[in-house]
Amino acid sequence: VPTETVPGRDADALVARALTGERAALARVLSFVDGGGDPARAVSRAVHARTGQSWVVGITGAPGAGKSTLTDRLVARVRDGGERVAVLAVDPTSPFSGGAILGDRVRMQEHATDDGVFIRSLATRGHLGGLSASVPAAARVLDAVGYPWVLIETVGVGQVEVEVAAHADTTVVVVNPGWGDAVQAAKAGLLEVADVFVVNKADRPGVRDTVRELDGMLELAGHGRGWRPPIVETVATDGSGIDALVDALRAHRGHQESSGSATARRRARVADELRAIVAEQLATVAAARGAGPRFDELVAAVDARTIDPYTAAAELAGPAAR
Amino acid sequence: VPTETVPGRDADALVARALTGERAALARVLSFVDGGGDPARAVSRAVHARTGQSWVVGITGAPGAGKSTLTDRLVARVRDGGERVAVLAVDPTSPFSGGAILGDRVRMQEHATDDGVFIRSLATRGHLGGLSASVPAAARVLDAVGYPWVLIETVGVGQVEVEVAAHADTTVVVVNPGWGDAVQAAKAGLLEVADVFVVNKADRPGVRDTVRELDGMLELAGHGRGWRPPIVETVATDGSGIDALVDALRAHRGHQESSGSATARRRARVADELRAIVAEQLATVAAARGAGPRFDELVAAVDARTIDPYTAAAELAGPAAR
Repeated sequence: VPTETVPGRDADALVARALTGERAALARVLSFVDGGGDPARAVSRAVHARTGQSWVVGITGAPGAGKSTLTDRLVARVRDGGERVAVLAVDPTSPFSGGAILGDRVRMQEHATDDGVFIRSLATRGHLGGLSASVPAAARVLDAVGYPWVLIETVGVGQVEVEVAAHADTTVVVVNPGWGDAVQAAKAGLLEVADVFVVNKADRPGVRDTVRELDGMLELAGHGRGWRPPIVETVATDGSGIDALVDALRAHRGHQESSGSATARRRARVADELRAIVAEQLATVAAARGAGPRFDELVAAVDARTIDPYTAAAELAGPAAR
Repeated sequence: VPTETVPGRDADALVARALTGERAALARVLSFVDGGGDPARAVSRAVHARTGQSWVVGITGAPGAGKSTLTDRLVARVRDGGERVAVLAVDPTSPFSGGAILGDRVRMQEHATDDGVFIRSLATRGHLGGLSASVPAAARVLDAVGYPWVLIETVGVGQVEVEVAAHADTTVVVVNPGWGDAVQAAKAGLLEVADVFVVNKADRPGVRDTVRELDGMLELAGHGRGWRPPIVETVATDGSGIDALVDALRAHRGHQESSGSATARRRARVADELRAIVAEQLATVAAARGAGPRFDELVAAVDARTIDPYTAAAELAGPAAR
């Protein structure tokens, strides 16, 4: 496709079409973002001025905790209130053309006829900035095209996924009843990032113990940010507790906006994204410097012992690295 | 320790002591190399001019194939011939202060009273250049202090470990008898990098099948480098086949030196190392750029939508990234 070779112009045109509500254009724009490099850059520039209206909710927790079902219930409830909502499913483990897309298709069926819902997976395997760059960028696109709610659902609890969820405006940590689940969440670093706890599958035995465990850990941790994370019990499969969860999300949003904490959180997200982009750009430089005639000369010189590897590398890295 | 704060001078002094045969100094020098950064750089500069005499043998294969026992047998056989030998055990999975060192101690006992043997683990978890930078650098130190044989034994067959082994002067791939082991080795990319195959535990059933499998795969692959990897059967636990393995190593060395392939291989090793060092230096730059007053200003500007993230990141990355 020839348009792929002019990312800047193509991105502007696609973004314009996405802004009119054209879903295929939006999907394509998000593919650019997920792929990184120049197209992602062009998209970011094109949407940036229109952003700043969405509330981003991160939903994380161990695999199997019921995050997808919970997210689907949240989507339905937000739609009941008449607001539009987008979902970014973050799944670095499944290949972009495989599991993630298939997952979208299955889940999209329920909302397929609803223009107010947009669901998309990000896999981000191909480029160096990775999820830390692409998730905030994708969320900004959805913001710019007019989704007031953007839900970021992580599949696992890897370090990067926890970071991505932690930099949402509101971070929801999902656990299940059962001895030790709360402790596992704490070990994964989820206690510190949770604004709202959900004990999902709350029709199972052990729910009281898990709530008590979380409560105890929260008591020990204190709540220095002026917000004590509420613990909401849900049964996502039948919709129980979803109203309480929506109330908790709105309460947290209200607190963040009135306390000014929302700004700090948003800036942490931007900082993370900037660092990821800088790292990506410098890695591209490193790859370019590790090839070519001068590189070959320096390799030969090191091999001939007329120069040592660190001196040679310093020349390759250039003034930037001094 | 105050000397740790002047890596250059300290490294020169330590290298000088290591060159006189002081083992504690050599161990310390290798710790500097494994830790990366300025001390590694200082060591590299101090030893570089004295290198170029060693033959580096990489020994790789699946965990449990018997690589350690085989390495120990090789060490004993080389010592029987009166030559000095050093072993670098590459184990990125075990923490430097834990398993790797403990492993050294257990294995060192056998050779503890022999000044002609030096065994050392590299774990290299702390710095960004990682094994690709530290293994060749450590091998060069051992070269400089006068070990004509340096054996690099990898614990696993991760991508980096395979690369490290592949850039040795001679790469030995160890498999075991049993249906599919040769296929697994091929899948891990070991077929392409093997100069010598060892079927260890050759007293077990299935050895003929495994040799036939390897033979068939070698036939299919051709041997464009003018060298067809021999397949040596060993029982490392009782020493069977070790003589044949030493013969195969010497034959490969002879071929490499007479054909000029040794130079190409050595240069590939240097190129890999240079790229790793450049990547490390640029990553350090990226970390430095992702903090400080200007970084905070740019984050605020992105948040205020007066600049987009990619433009901000381009300023942070500097001219190097343009």
